[in-house]
Amino acid sequence: MRQGIIFVLSGPSGVGKGTVLNKLLDNFNDIVYSISATTRKPRIGEVNGQDYFFFSREDFFKKIEKKDFIEWAKVHNNYYGTLRSYVEKIVKKGKDIILEIDIQGARQVKQEYNDAVYIFLSPPSIKDLKSRLDRRNSENIDNKLLRLKNAEIELKEKSKYDYEIINDQANKAAKKLKAIIIAERCRIR
Amino acid sequence: MRQGIIFVLSGPSGVGKGTVLNKLLDNFNDIVYSISATTRKPRIGEVNGQDYFFFSREDFFKKIEKKDFIEWAKVHNNYYGTLRSYVEKIVKKGKDIILEIDIQGARQVKQEYNDAVYIFLSPPSIKDLKSRLDRRNSENIDNKLLRLKNAEIELKEKSKYDYEIINDQANKAAKKLKAIIIAERCRIR
Repeated sequence: MRQGIIFVLSGPSGVGKGTVLNKLLDNFNDIVYSISATTRKPRIGEVNGQDYFFFSREDFFKKIEKKDFIEWAKVHNNYYGTLRSYVEKIVKKGKDIILEIDIQGARQVKQEYNDAVYIFLSPPSIKDLKSRLDRRNSENIDNKLLRLKNAEIELKEKSKYDYEIINDQANKAAKKLKAIIIAERCRIR
Repeated sequence: MRQGIIFVLSGPSGVGKGTVLNKLLDNFNDIVYSISATTRKPRIGEVNGQDYFFFSREDFFKKIEKKDFIEWAKVHNNYYGTLRSYVEKIVKKGKDIILEIDIQGARQVKQEYNDAVYIFLSPPSIKDLKSRLDRRNSENIDNKLLRLKNAEIELKEKSKYDYEIINDQANKAAKKLKAIIIAERCRIR
């Protein structure tokens, strides 16, 4: 049986990965959205195994030690990761899966899954990324500047990716993402 | 300026390349369909430089000698070819171009344009290809058998291509072709 394909959607913080992915999934359900594991407490309405796999810090750390994560990172004092067993199970069933992760995470995934499909979501310009970060109320000024600086560094990593989608409009970007998924299914490996 | 991408749509004779390409061009005009050169006489209504570039045998042979063709072939006592100058001109303008050619032709193009995008159109099965050839009235039995035998040989060449589209329905196949074009425009080279 055909194995599923792993798609990795990455890009600088604030570029709009989540929005583009949601637009994709709105009219395309023939791919599994990879659910992350986290130590963050569930918010009201969030369901374990649907929004996230929720873990205590202790359990999360054990899983790090056992190398149960394909990638993991600490973000704002919480831990996030992608469970290897979860991804492998889906791929072995022949289903494709898409991971929405930051650039550090994508780098980790690439070390193990070199033949996954790596898609880089770019801002139309650094200026545009700046104004996107400005619109996010939850960020303070220091964070914003740090993220902007990181973004400039991260943009240089694009060349390691298979595809670049410039996110000038989320709808258009989602259509391109869909095209990449359909095309990759036709790809002769 | 970005150079245009060369797409090569190939596959066994009778698989439906022309139909799929017409369906694509019906709702997608952001690509140039490569016009072939031929020694065949124009049919009523056919326009030089629009349907074909019409040449005398003498002129065509001169062009073969001068290596003016990326690929050429003799089919049913007429010669067909793709003019290098024509393709180069379009690509240099930054426009993408799609060539609809047989497997022999694709092989010739690949020698010169290794980074073109090669798409193999497959029949759902050999049985299906046989019935497609049966429906073509213009063929005699000998031709049909020969083409069927060639098709079996040609199917083995698939592995040299970048993509395979199984032509179970022309509309679906055209959508996949469109996805491949859009995806390749996002590809990081």
